[in-house]
Amino acid sequence: MRSKAYEVHEECGVIGVVRADGPAAELVHRGLFALQHRGQEAAGIVTWGPTKELHHLKGRGLVSECLPVYQVKALAGSVAIGHVRYSTVTMDRSENIQPFLATTPYGKFAIGHNGNLKNTDALRSRLEAAGSLLSTTMDTELIVHLLARSGAKSFVDALARAAGESLGAYSLVMICEGVLYALRDPHGIRPLVLGELKAGWVVASETCALDALGATYVRDLGPGELLTIENNRLTSRQLLPVGRPAPCVFELVYFSRPDSRVFGQGVHGARTRMGERLAMQDLALGTPMPDVIVPVPDSGFPAAVGYARQSGVALEKAIIRSHYVGRTFILPDQDSRSHSIRLKLSVIREAVCDKRVLLIDDSIVRGNTSREIVAMVRSAGAREVGMRIASPPLAWPCYLGIDTPDRDELVINQHRDEEGVRRFIGCDSLRYLTIDGLAEATGRQPFCMGCMNGDYPL
Amino acid sequence: MRSKAYEVHEECGVIGVVRADGPAAELVHRGLFALQHRGQEAAGIVTWGPTKELHHLKGRGLVSECLPVYQVKALAGSVAIGHVRYSTVTMDRSENIQPFLATTPYGKFAIGHNGNLKNTDALRSRLEAAGSLLSTTMDTELIVHLLARSGAKSFVDALARAAGESLGAYSLVMICEGVLYALRDPHGIRPLVLGELKAGWVVASETCALDALGATYVRDLGPGELLTIENNRLTSRQLLPVGRPAPCVFELVYFSRPDSRVFGQGVHGARTRMGERLAMQDLALGTPMPDVIVPVPDSGFPAAVGYARQSGVALEKAIIRSHYVGRTFILPDQDSRSHSIRLKLSVIREAVCDKRVLLIDDSIVRGNTSREIVAMVRSAGAREVGMRIASPPLAWPCYLGIDTPDRDELVINQHRDEEGVRRFIGCDSLRYLTIDGLAEATGRQPFCMGCMNGDYPL
Amino acid sequence: MRSKAYEVHEECGVIGVVRADGPAAELVHRGLFALQHRGQEAAGIVTWGPTKELHHLKGRGLVSECLPVYQVKALAGSVAIGHVRYSTVTMDRSENIQPFLATTPYGKFAIGHNGNLKNTDALRSRLEAAGSLLSTTMDTELIVHLLARSGAKSFVDALARAAGESLGAYSLVMICEGVLYALRDPHGIRPLVLGELKAGWVVASETCALDALGATYVRDLGPGELLTIENNRLTSRQLLPVGRPAPCVFELVYFSRPDSRVFGQGVHGARTRMGERLAMQDLALGTPMPDVIVPVPDSGFPAAVGYARQSGVALEKAIIRSHYVGRTFILPDQDSRSHSIRLKLSVIREAVCDKRVLLIDDSIVRGNTSREIVAMVRSAGAREVGMRIASPPLAWPCYLGIDTPDRDELVINQHRDEEGVRRFIGCDSLRYLTIDGLAEATGRQPFCMGCMNGDYPL
Amino acid sequence: MRSKAYEVHEECGVIGVVRADGPAAELVHRGLFALQHRGQEAAGIVTWGPTKELHHLKGRGLVSECLPVYQVKALAGSVAIGHVRYSTVTMDRSENIQPFLATTPYGKFAIGHNGNLKNTDALRSRLEAAGSLLSTTMDTELIVHLLARSGAKSFVDALARAAGESLGAYSLVMICEGVLYALRDPHGIRPLVLGELKAGWVVASETCALDALGATYVRDLGPGELLTIENNRLTSRQLLPVGRPAPCVFELVYFSRPDSRVFGQGVHGARTRMGERLAMQDLALGTPMPDVIVPVPDSGFPAAVGYARQSGVALEKAIIRSHYVGRTFILPDQDSRSHSIRLKLSVIREAVCDKRVLLIDDSIVRGNTSREIVAMVRSAGAREVGMRIASPPLAWPCYLGIDTPDRDELVINQHRDEEGVRRFIGCDSLRYLTIDGLAEATGRQPFCMGCMNGDYPL
Repeated sequence: MRSKAYEVHEECGVIGVVRADGPAAELVHRGLFALQHRGQEAAGIVTWGPTKELHHLKGRGLVSECLPVYQVKALAGSVAIGHVRYSTVTMDRSENIQPFLATTPYGKFAIGHNGNLKNTDALRSRLEAAGSLLSTTMDTELIVHLLARSGAKSFVDALARAAGESLGAYSLVMICEGVLYALRDPHGIRPLVLGELKAGWVVASETCALDALGATYVRDLGPGELLTIENNRLTSRQLLPVGRPAPCVFELVYFSRPDSRVFGQGVHGARTRMGERLAMQDLALGTPMPDVIVPVPDSGFPAAVGYARQSGVALEKAIIRSHYVGRTFILPDQDSRSHSIRLKLSVIREAVCDKRVLLIDDSIVRGNTSREIVAMVRSAGAREVGMRIASPPLAWPCYLGIDTPDRDELVINQHRDEEGVRRFIGCDSLRYLTIDGLAEATGRQPFCMGCMNGDYPL
Repeated sequence: MRSKAYEVHEECGVIGVVRADGPAAELVHRGLFALQHRGQEAAGIVTWGPTKELHHLKGRGLVSECLPVYQVKALAGSVAIGHVRYSTVTMDRSENIQPFLATTPYGKFAIGHNGNLKNTDALRSRLEAAGSLLSTTMDTELIVHLLARSGAKSFVDALARAAGESLGAYSLVMICEGVLYALRDPHGIRPLVLGELKAGWVVASETCALDALGATYVRDLGPGELLTIENNRLTSRQLLPVGRPAPCVFELVYFSRPDSRVFGQGVHGARTRMGERLAMQDLALGTPMPDVIVPVPDSGFPAAVGYARQSGVALEKAIIRSHYVGRTFILPDQDSRSHSIRLKLSVIREAVCDKRVLLIDDSIVRGNTSREIVAMVRSAGAREVGMRIASPPLAWPCYLGIDTPDRDELVINQHRDEEGVRRFIGCDSLRYLTIDGLAEATGRQPFCMGCMNGDYPL
Repeated sequence: MRSKAYEVHEECGVIGVVRADGPAAELVHRGLFALQHRGQEAAGIVTWGPTKELHHLKGRGLVSECLPVYQVKALAGSVAIGHVRYSTVTMDRSENIQPFLATTPYGKFAIGHNGNLKNTDALRSRLEAAGSLLSTTMDTELIVHLLARSGAKSFVDALARAAGESLGAYSLVMICEGVLYALRDPHGIRPLVLGELKAGWVVASETCALDALGATYVRDLGPGELLTIENNRLTSRQLLPVGRPAPCVFELVYFSRPDSRVFGQGVHGARTRMGERLAMQDLALGTPMPDVIVPVPDSGFPAAVGYARQSGVALEKAIIRSHYVGRTFILPDQDSRSHSIRLKLSVIREAVCDKRVLLIDDSIVRGNTSREIVAMVRSAGAREVGMRIASPPLAWPCYLGIDTPDRDELVINQHRDEEGVRRFIGCDSLRYLTIDGLAEATGRQPFCMGCMNGDYPL
Repeated sequence: MRSKAYEVHEECGVIGVVRADGPAAELVHRGLFALQHRGQEAAGIVTWGPTKELHHLKGRGLVSECLPVYQVKALAGSVAIGHVRYSTVTMDRSENIQPFLATTPYGKFAIGHNGNLKNTDALRSRLEAAGSLLSTTMDTELIVHLLARSGAKSFVDALARAAGESLGAYSLVMICEGVLYALRDPHGIRPLVLGELKAGWVVASETCALDALGATYVRDLGPGELLTIENNRLTSRQLLPVGRPAPCVFELVYFSRPDSRVFGQGVHGARTRMGERLAMQDLALGTPMPDVIVPVPDSGFPAAVGYARQSGVALEKAIIRSHYVGRTFILPDQDSRSHSIRLKLSVIREAVCDKRVLLIDDSIVRGNTSREIVAMVRSAGAREVGMRIASPPLAWPCYLGIDTPDRDELVINQHRDEEGVRRFIGCDSLRYLTIDGLAEATGRQPFCMGCMNGDYPL
């Protein structure tokens, strides 16, 4: 279920639009709605207006709350970038809402960033010692200071120097004096795609934002590639040498929207195949089949369909989710967590009663939600409750743009192994998709699976 | 999809709790969360406290917004009633939020009401001429004035007289001087069920509220039956003569929650059977089967599962719904309606592309949403788009507790017949479930199908 | 100082306007600004519109906060009434904001009330037993129920009956089916004046509201007099027999605005004369004169000018008041009261240092503020600090429209006599104006001085 | 009247506290209340806590609104600075609320600034070209960038360099790594005073803040003087060479609070003497004396008392000001300005009717308010209305910390001379205090009178 959003967070989503036939801000706005799942805490839009100035609109909360249409319409200009953000650490400071604006030696500049740097502490100390004043706690600002102080002759050279010093994951959209730039880090860790409008271009974190704008998908940006769009003319250059390719597999497992294509494949299809692989694992081991397959809402659905299809077992939407329990609703009780899950989810008794039920979810982080769901299904009369997870155990933290809990809070580390997790969750059987199964389902590309195997590109 | 909630509204949901082992307000609160789908505009709780006074908490918005836990905890007392409300007409007046409180000749009194009266104008004129001051625009207040002025010796006699003069649909929960009363109108139009707690009783609009409290379902209240719970002791009497039985079939088709039992049957099962009947209709007519069955979120799901199961065709969750577009978000554009549906719903291209798609929905009101969805599926590459509706056309208004649009705004009346609607919706084929099919799916009980056939119990 | 407003509260101010040359609501609005000192907790306006309906606008807070101009402009109609309100007891209920509206047997009705009834409990019980539903906790509603149930043939007869049963203080402005009515109780306790507009009439609590509208003062309404303004034609009748005359002297001492005329005399002049009488008392007793007269802001000013003029001693505005400490600002400290006075008031050291200072205030309620001020003046270096109060001690509660503290919280009762109060206040000398002095200053009219001598008209 | 605050604004007020016997934030908070008249748009407090970190609390609006006591109490530390701010230009950006925080090569740093620089544009361009990122639009930030990039070895050297490059008015309070610094510009344009606490020190814009804290006034800081308070030990050094002395005379005329001492003299006394000088001017010219002296609230009061005392004419507080018309209340009408003054001010008819009235005000900016007041007094029946202004005409803008309107909006420039202003204001006679009279009243010190004579220190 998406409430995993409270446990594992994508840091951000970005979008940039250049168009010849109207204001760009409205398209960016529509794209941010489509990218909302990548960040729900804040959002912002910056445009380059006809008066050769940057205009911005930023706020806290959902796009629908903090970027009102009438204010978006007031943002003149045919070049715009936008950003949605999640961050636990820094949200007390409104300065941290992106895009970040600055006047640099290369002119008026704005930047939106998806990802995380690894060497922030070193960069921060170095810059402060040199007399730079940092006004936010964001990685992104560090890149801008490096750029502003680079001493390089041109903006692109300055960007190359700044990016060269910034180790980590970044997909950037930028405006500098009216030119749109988009850059992906040398490992291609976070997605960034290019789309074509009737009279313009769009770059965005996921293709679902392209669809929202009626744009045609052109291609993914390559690792280290810089796109430049000036006067609606697109040019590309390899700004940075390509590193070890490491697209984040968790984008396919959980983060990206099911209707997006990322890293060259459809997310829905990948997830359905993960479910099929799960079923193959069970069938190969001769595991007895259940009476009914039940997806854990909402993210377990494609895998459940895949499992059901592969196994021939009937699927039932036996767990429903209330739309009325707000994101921010918190029960202050002792046992609030349990209550709040029970307020959000309900089990349809007649669909599970007296049946052997197999729950399908995409992943488990801390395990508390799973544990609660198993108990609910059981008390609705299920005779047996199994669980299958359509990805390998999450055993390591992510330093590259996903806000995971500490290592020792992850359920697999807390309870040692699959059997320990099963006991904690309280189900009758539990099985994860293997790393190999995941690789099969995702086409054996060279992914970063750092959160599953501890092997990071940096 | 639930956005039908903007087109057809259930007026209300009610709950009443008496318990011997703790404060009742918290249980009512939890029950109101479960009944939230029956009214999202306002909510309220009234308790009878140890000081022999009524305490109340009311507000506008969702239960999670307007009834904060810490304030609910402050409502002392082992007897409580609660109410959730939707009303387009009267929401500018905060007095209209229920439960309604009054001091009557029979003591301190509070009432929550689900339903609508037919003879409100006559009652209102009569009362005002006699010097009663009406302080709200609610039907409910009329019942209370009738009761207060009845001249009857006892509260129950007064209630019988007041109810006798009130024609229409009502499921009432009331507190009078610490005694809980629950009454269902003589036709049994709106649901009302009784459940048993470990140490107490609960009456509620639907069983999903019982489940939320861990209560055991005992039975439905009968038409015209009055339950009295005094000092945790339950008694029943037939307060009013039983009328022509007329439970609202739309509760099964759309309103009630899929995990509830209403009028003696499971809602999920009924809806799944409606889908099976739909498939049988198609199969009987030799209609060619599609490549994929796609439910319209969220309410089309059980029928889609039923259709898929009966037909053997694969189901895909190919339309996804954003959780981030708030209930209240409104785009002020010319073509806002279309945009706002496109912000809420997305079609997974790879799941429908080049396929013959059959969409399943539970009902159509004005048809605009359906029209938009068909267009979206088509532009995602579907080769053919059919639609099946798991209930008969809505052709008449409801006067008994559902807030439907005017007759001539209903799509079937605007476009004359199934073929007219099909052309308006823009799909390649359209078929509704027949009245007979609906009767089969719901067990051939004597339902009110007034909105479908114009035949009302009053 | 006006912060006495936190200790002694006028319940309300009322205004009614009929005009032939434009909308009445804007004039009522402007009048309510002028009457704001009579009630700061809530305000409301009701108009009779061209569609023969009542329109209303009400809210909590100051007129400037709760009655926005653009909404006032939307209130059509040439007849309007308005109300400002203070009430400690009942402000949790928004229903209590006046004017109160009702549909009566005599038609659509609205009422604004200044004053308090004495027999509310008896009236309330009688009405509830007879089946009336009370929707507020206001005295005013009782009058309306009595009126609605009177059975009288005409509205005026009904009003006479209802008023006849209502004992206490009331100045009423009413609209019934487009006719404006104004009624003053038989004792004439609260003020009510009539003014003439260029093309219309206005009735209001004080003449300052007339000035705000550019209206000409015509006369005070008489005790028991009913004014009727229909189609801009004024008629008068003696609705109720005249009782013992008892205008509230505290209106002159503190409540009414200094630029108003009430009960036939200018408030500023009366207060200045109270100060002169105070000086005469001191001079007659041979009391040594101080170096400087210092008014306690803001209400002590006219008396201080009177004292200074009579005694020939120089006046200094040596205590200044901050405009930036909001009405609602509350310090949660132990010693908050002291702090909050010190935040509001400051003493100008150079104006009092080494001087014998005589502070002049209009009255003392609990004495805490006075005590604090004396200490402040002393610590600013004053050699001697005396205090004179321009009215007799407040020793009794008011039941007729002023919200005083309990008898035993009044400083004169807590500390027995003038000497006790002096010790509590901490000043070197203290003297109150005598009852006789007050009578001299106010022209020896037959006032209600119940709060000073315990002698009430009822 | 203080509503001049809408025409001429002091930019800021500052305060810094070091104490050994408790948290400093609460004292700063109390001091900011006392300095509120110097800035009402925003406020902030920064403390240096025991964990060797800066804590801050900032917000928009009045101190009572934006710095709640319970949050102030949470600011640990014995060293604190505070700031109140007014600024028309930049308030859309919350980053502009002071104190401004930064991490510099010299450690964690916070600064509050009263005044304005002249060479901002040059500094800004230079810094941006060198790669500094400016995050606010405040002069203050420029000083900090200069400091951070100075390359100096010590903080004090860096401060000297930065201040040396910053031309204009500044009174600064700063914290750097737990040490409090206070610096006044070489011309001593804005006030800054030192006070002693029982166990600590306080620096503040005015002595009224010292009084609010119970601190003893020690002395004014000298031009170019730097105070350092480390571990509660005070040291002083002449950081910058003393320039031409130029304390702002308008602090005495209007800005500073009457109970403050600034530039070595009491404000109340200075204003009273300005009134006396005004009377002397009239008497010397044989001008016929009026019947009554009436101060324009609130700031005309001390001068009116001075005039009355010198002339022997009676003073009447005949214009009263409503406390209920909020700062932010704006009437959207055509003639709103006139209306809004009439809502705020009222004339007591009986105090001016048939009299020759002389109004006393401290200064005139645009003249609209004066014009309105004259009309009000006239229509209250005054036989003659004269006006005296207790300072010379404002004919030039201020570049050094006061936000005046453009030159051509000043009434003296719009209407050429005293006679032109008199005709515009509509009074029967008008006279300003002469520059020489002002010099006499203020003790013939070398003030900056730039706004009156165009002669600025820079």
